Amino acid sequence: MAFVLPERSISKGPNFIRDVFERGAGIPGFISFGIGNPAGEVVPVAEIQAAFDYIVHTNPLEILQYGPMQGDAKLAEQTLHRLVHVHHMPTQNQQLLLSIGAGQDLGLVPRTVCDAGDEVYMDAYTFTSAINAVRSVGAKAVGIPTDGDGMIPEALEKAAKSGKGKYIYLIPNFQNPTGITMPLERRKAIYEIAKAYDLFIYEDDPYGEIRFGGERVPTFKEMDTDNRVLYAGSYSKTISAGLRVGFLYGPSEVIQAIQVMKNNCDGQMPLVTQRVVSHLLEHIDYDEQIQKVCKVYQEKCHVMLDTFRQYGSSKVHLTEPTGGMFIWMTLPDHVDCDAFFEEAIARKVGIVKSGAFAADGVPYGQHFRLSYTVPSLEDIRKGMQIIGELTREYCGD
Amino acid sequence: MAFVLPERSISKGPNFIRDVFERGAGIPGFISFGIGNPAGEVVPVAEIQAAFDYIVHTNPLEILQYGPMQGDAKLAEQTLHRLVHVHHMPTQNQQLLLSIGAGQDLGLVPRTVCDAGDEVYMDAYTFTSAINAVRSVGAKAVGIPTDGDGMIPEALEKAAKSGKGKYIYLIPNFQNPTGITMPLERRKAIYEIAKAYDLFIYEDDPYGEIRFGGERVPTFKEMDTDNRVLYAGSYSKTISAGLRVGFLYGPSEVIQAIQVMKNNCDGQMPLVTQRVVSHLLEHIDYDEQIQKVCKVYQEKCHVMLDTFRQYGSSKVHLTEPTGGMFIWMTLPDHVDCDAFFEEAIARKVGIVKSGAFAADGVPYGQHFRLSYTVPSLEDIRKGMQIIGELTREYCGD
Repeated sequence: MAFVLPERSISKGPNFIRDVFERGAGIPGFISFGIGNPAGEVVPVAEIQAAFDYIVHTNPLEILQYGPMQGDAKLAEQTLHRLVHVHHMPTQNQQLLLSIGAGQDLGLVPRTVCDAGDEVYMDAYTFTSAINAVRSVGAKAVGIPTDGDGMIPEALEKAAKSGKGKYIYLIPNFQNPTGITMPLERRKAIYEIAKAYDLFIYEDDPYGEIRFGGERVPTFKEMDTDNRVLYAGSYSKTISAGLRVGFLYGPSEVIQAIQVMKNNCDGQMPLVTQRVVSHLLEHIDYDEQIQKVCKVYQEKCHVMLDTFRQYGSSKVHLTEPTGGMFIWMTLPDHVDCDAFFEEAIARKVGIVKSGAFAADGVPYGQHFRLSYTVPSLEDIRKGMQIIGELTREYCGD
Repeated sequence: MAFVLPERSISKGPNFIRDVFERGAGIPGFISFGIGNPAGEVVPVAEIQAAFDYIVHTNPLEILQYGPMQGDAKLAEQTLHRLVHVHHMPTQNQQLLLSIGAGQDLGLVPRTVCDAGDEVYMDAYTFTSAINAVRSVGAKAVGIPTDGDGMIPEALEKAAKSGKGKYIYLIPNFQNPTGITMPLERRKAIYEIAKAYDLFIYEDDPYGEIRFGGERVPTFKEMDTDNRVLYAGSYSKTISAGLRVGFLYGPSEVIQAIQVMKNNCDGQMPLVTQRVVSHLLEHIDYDEQIQKVCKVYQEKCHVMLDTFRQYGSSKVHLTEPTGGMFIWMTLPDHVDCDAFFEEAIARKVGIVKSGAFAADGVPYGQHFRLSYTVPSLEDIRKGMQIIGELTREYCGD
């Protein structure tokens, strides 16, 4: 039979991220700055193995039967405790939802709150899955222009005047793909616009604790005086991405609706992985573990930037992140970025074209995302020398 | 702020299943026939523990990093092999998707294929999550009358004449909640209607291999000459529900769209649980494990039916399943089923009102679902004596 699928379910455009992965896969010596994975060396492997050993051999039937729909109560308690006592988040009329990574929240939020035709405002270049998840429910992922401090309030306000807006999606800390952190004043300005146009804010903060420079900036949730912020976090970047444990924290009535959507349509999440994270939080010094991640990423980030300074073109701009996993490279307007990309691949270095992150109405752009987390220091030096020299060839000294 | 949620995201009506659970939870000696869980004693605990020990201590970083979006390649291969070589399913233009239980597929299918206003045809009483998942995308879960052989073809055809139909949702084997298995001729008649009205068939078969009586009936997928069947299966009922590993098999172009929806919006599923199932399939005799499940359920089912025959009213009808987990009890029209339910709870026995399973346009009904899997044989005898005596009190001898 011939299947007619809804417009919103037909995927459009190239997948630039998979492209890098697939083209690099067969090539010996290929150095990839394309993968957004945490570094392997910061995963507390032995501690996680010990946690599995304990959990799997203690009350095994509990984890092998259907568990509670809401997820593991103890992990929820530990997570909530940290949000409230370490991150100073409000508690009144708030609820926590455990999810299969923060990735599951990306889909759950628009599925639950958006009607077809609604608009969601996001940085012009932002996390690909966030864009796709909004499109997949028939809503519109509207890209808002940004500057070095993130989303521009005036541009947001201009878009919000349509009256079709539902929420603002933001990664305020060490944004993916740009690495930019939004300063406090900018956050306040964005929050005022959310108030004025009755939008809520989806604050996606998977990298928030991976800060290796600058000063901590309060989260939107921390300053959420009229309870309009949904805060998403994850243990993927600090403990292990493969365990798939994240969470969403926000207004009770919204979280409740999302929990019902999750229960009805996604089924349960595995309990064993939640229990392992919970056990770990109890048995390791979590702050020390985070500091370990920060230290590794700081060194890798600085080597990437320093190598570029040594070999790269002065016409090319790189963001200088104070945390997280990504650097954003901008080439002058006249440069053919497709040709640049092809030449990088030919010289065995993978980077991601900005088109991968472009929200609706945003040009593919003159940018590339570079991730420094996975490659070794040696590969970062080697790969960035190649990228640096390439920028001189394409953009001049 | 005040949140305005879409109509489809606002949950309606009581949750009769949770109701039983919550009301029974605090009561000592409470016997629940309300839970649709597999029996604990059929879970191969030691083998699963050994599988975890091996997987967690062999290439640990593989399971602790982001894994392949498509899930574990080896498990996919093992699953496909069984579908094709044991269950005789077609291979041309087919694709397999691994999912977080078959439960995740319940949401993914309508999310990917339905537009708002589409109709999905299902048994008048069917799996609650299937109903809710269809409603949650703004489509209509249309209940089709059934008889002792399942969905009535003429009734389906009458509904399909609206021209709004997208697919038919069926649990042809040991249906939840009725326990009914659809005979071959009925399957053929339903398939012809699907052809005539260009509907596809979502064949949900989590219990299919748990057959302890009667003759095996070919699946829709096995007879799917023009590739219109999406077949969902699971390791939840045969190995462990808590591991959350299921799958969906069907037309490549549809599965591909569903896989993209899953990648974009649900994120990855944990790899460790998939690897454990894969390891288990390699190291245990899976057919022997299934036979073990069948044997336990057969005895429990027969004890439930026999006890009812001894104590129950002749005015009350119970289905006699040849597999699966559920019996469907029907009381005469004049009986007050709410009062009957309350009295059962008062006598410390939990059963589920048929309203829990009623699709759109279907009355709550004079039925109850009884599950025999979790309680011990002793509790089944005790609980069914109470239910049996209660039917005599309410319905006469």
